[in-house]
Amino acid sequence: MRRFSFLLVISLFSSVQLAAQTDEDAFQIKKIFDTSLTEGKAYDWLYDLTHNVGARLSGSPGAAAAVEFGKQVFDTLGFDKVYLQECMVPHWERGEPEVVKVVNSETMGSVDLNALALGFSGATGPAGLTAEVIKVNSLEELRALDDAAVAGKIVFFNGPMDPTQVNTFSAYGGAVGQRSRGPRESAQKGAVGAVVRSMTLKLDDVPHSGGTNFEDVAPIPALAISTKAANLLSTLVDNEPVRLYLRTTCKRLSDKVSYNVVGEITGREFPDEIILVGGHLDSWDVSQGAHDDGAGCVQSMDVIHIFNLIGYKPKRTLRCVLFMNEENGQEGAKVYTNTSNANNEHHIAALESDRGGFTPRGFTTEGHDETYKDLIKQAKRWDVLLQPYGLIINAGGGSGADISRLRSQKGLLIGLLPDSQRYFDFHHAANDNFDKVNKRELQLGAGAMTALIYLIDHYGLTPGADTGTHKGKKK
Amino acid sequence: MRRFSFLLVISLFSSVQLAAQTDEDAFQIKKIFDTSLTEGKAYDWLYDLTHNVGARLSGSPGAAAAVEFGKQVFDTLGFDKVYLQECMVPHWERGEPEVVKVVNSETMGSVDLNALALGFSGATGPAGLTAEVIKVNSLEELRALDDAAVAGKIVFFNGPMDPTQVNTFSAYGGAVGQRSRGPRESAQKGAVGAVVRSMTLKLDDVPHSGGTNFEDVAPIPALAISTKAANLLSTLVDNEPVRLYLRTTCKRLSDKVSYNVVGEITGREFPDEIILVGGHLDSWDVSQGAHDDGAGCVQSMDVIHIFNLIGYKPKRTLRCVLFMNEENGQEGAKVYTNTSNANNEHHIAALESDRGGFTPRGFTTEGHDETYKDLIKQAKRWDVLLQPYGLIINAGGGSGADISRLRSQKGLLIGLLPDSQRYFDFHHAANDNFDKVNKRELQLGAGAMTALIYLIDHYGLTPGADTGTHKGKKK
Repeated sequence: MRRFSFLLVISLFSSVQLAAQTDEDAFQIKKIFDTSLTEGKAYDWLYDLTHNVGARLSGSPGAAAAVEFGKQVFDTLGFDKVYLQECMVPHWERGEPEVVKVVNSETMGSVDLNALALGFSGATGPAGLTAEVIKVNSLEELRALDDAAVAGKIVFFNGPMDPTQVNTFSAYGGAVGQRSRGPRESAQKGAVGAVVRSMTLKLDDVPHSGGTNFEDVAPIPALAISTKAANLLSTLVDNEPVRLYLRTTCKRLSDKVSYNVVGEITGREFPDEIILVGGHLDSWDVSQGAHDDGAGCVQSMDVIHIFNLIGYKPKRTLRCVLFMNEENGQEGAKVYTNTSNANNEHHIAALESDRGGFTPRGFTTEGHDETYKDLIKQAKRWDVLLQPYGLIINAGGGSGADISRLRSQKGLLIGLLPDSQRYFDFHHAANDNFDKVNKRELQLGAGAMTALIYLIDHYGLTPGADTGTHKGKKK
Repeated sequence: MRRFSFLLVISLFSSVQLAAQTDEDAFQIKKIFDTSLTEGKAYDWLYDLTHNVGARLSGSPGAAAAVEFGKQVFDTLGFDKVYLQECMVPHWERGEPEVVKVVNSETMGSVDLNALALGFSGATGPAGLTAEVIKVNSLEELRALDDAAVAGKIVFFNGPMDPTQVNTFSAYGGAVGQRSRGPRESAQKGAVGAVVRSMTLKLDDVPHSGGTNFEDVAPIPALAISTKAANLLSTLVDNEPVRLYLRTTCKRLSDKVSYNVVGEITGREFPDEIILVGGHLDSWDVSQGAHDDGAGCVQSMDVIHIFNLIGYKPKRTLRCVLFMNEENGQEGAKVYTNTSNANNEHHIAALESDRGGFTPRGFTTEGHDETYKDLIKQAKRWDVLLQPYGLIINAGGGSGADISRLRSQKGLLIGLLPDSQRYFDFHHAANDNFDKVNKRELQLGAGAMTALIYLIDHYGLTPGADTGTHKGKKK
């Protein structure tokens, strides 16, 4: 009976302690969201970035201006250090407006199709090229074709994103191989060009660019056409032989020096435990890059700003990183990871926002086989604190292209998960502009990120730890 | 031991049965969402309603055209009956564009403020009126003032919606009394006019109209001004005596005949158990009324259309209702409820969509004291089937203005709960147009509604029933 009472007392004490912590956490998280919704700066910074910098593809003057913008804002945020981390980035330029034209079709005569060259596309040169079109609906269909059927032709990839996927990123994942790998595989079979149905669920006239990867293969002209153009082309191809005229003067120039922008607050108690929050600074060249990924950059900066406003000093080292060159090479992420690994750093967690500035629905996660199960179990206990804001921490779903390289450090890798319905209306297209961002949605995302970073900092995340009050290695 | 085994067998049997049902339900719900996202008609119908009918305030030609539109679509949906249910609706007209002008301020001279008369506002007549402004930030502040301080003045209600409410409807609920009751209470204290800060969380130049209620009091001119105008006026009033010039030629005409549009599929098994799904057909007069509540109307019709496409025949009577006059009187809802009660009908559930066509997050509910606890407990068991679509059935939160009058029938009253962040950017304002609606968000809402109606129809909802397989009174 004595033993029972003892356990009971322990148990009651723990419950009381836990309840008190939870109340304090709930209070802090409410303060974080209130602050983000009333005094957050993400939206105002996004205005500046999109209007005063604008498009910022790696290697462009815009990208250099974006680095300056990031550095200047960081210098106002009270970091212990702010620095630029050098990286060499590819430099590809679009050149003159592209032409994709159906030539002398029996049904429609000649028809211009709205198009954008894909990043790293080869050029036709000023004269352009004309060839017959062969349509496939997937990479698998292409692979099943004899080289002879493809040689000398323009391959048209027309597989749509699956509209029945509620998570549009799943639909993107199912179709984007046609864009990222299709042109290279077409070239290997002797194709002279490739056109790809735009990666969007909308039926409209807006072409969506994005990267394609030729690796060791000589680039051929590769362009995205709008979904309406793809439907028209598909119908024509089904009914008659179709020839396309392509013209693009894009070019690959020498690599350029660029930078990640890094700011750091040294942890008061556990300086060796690093928590990263970030987004990517570069964007495609055809819009202001508001959702992709201006939103992620300004939200990440707002995490620091909100902590400053509520007077929260992190126990652990908090690092804010604006990565360069996510869109076509991820050279910034490679340098960041290699440097971090060489310095034997330990990121206990990294959070990237790169799915747009829409209402946050929660977070996705991934990690190292040895630690992930343990870490996600710890993190899931915070769901109760996040639920009032409509948020949930999902086991699985990935994190972000820039931070997933940190896996070998065995921390928890996290992606902000906003509502995904509108993202691919704007992704890599000329309409990804500031007017497509709702202030409250963006600021709720910043609040969600700040709340989660607060919880990670406050409780830590350590494999094997099973209490909410892990003590790490003190300074 | 025998008894134990017997119970065990029962329990295993029930589990197996339940699992099989859940699989079948999951399959049906997936089919419902797939159909809504690929063949749903809500978005196309909304295009027609917003472009070919447009604004449709009760008593206007637009409202009459909307009734025709609804009836025509209903006639294509395979209902067992379609009818118009007559009601008398108020008829208020805005008249000429309103003027609200700061007169000869020391700081700014004369300044025009963007304004819209509130529904049932009194008119100034063509000459307008000029009076001094007195500012209050809430109804309570007005009530605390002596009549002498108010008499002869224009009361300016400047209490903002609370931006820290994550659910913007809560913020609306906290502020809208200034609009709905403020002008009447001002008139009772002898005020000659009222201007109200627009009910939106955005800081912009867009005024938001809406109803105000004078009941037995003679109407005074009452107008909403944009939030930027309100901030300017507030600053001026804090620094100097301010006089406003108001001009509105709005007028209240004789009540008019109008209609609810009703379609009904008679239940195959339980025809006396009615499940209602609906929205309201009228809108304010300054926009296309896309989110409020074109969205709810077309989603409700799509429930029937999706059932048709998947070949689902309801066991219970399914009634689709497009209510007239939700915005300024709810005369349609009153007639519907009174008729239903007089006929001793029993609505086991009613679902209204009237919070915009945004990504659905779940449902809110309310009901009768005697049955609500029991019904919400039954409904909550469906959460597991709705969770894959990001939906949850909330205990509490209300239902819809048109259906909440059905409470005495003791069924479950349900409101679709979409993401609320953008709703008050457009609510009752000139920008509530088709271009503000995202097709996938709208169709996911239609899918969510269809899924819940399917579950209610399939399992029933009966006080005291505790299995998922309630058998009601058969035909």
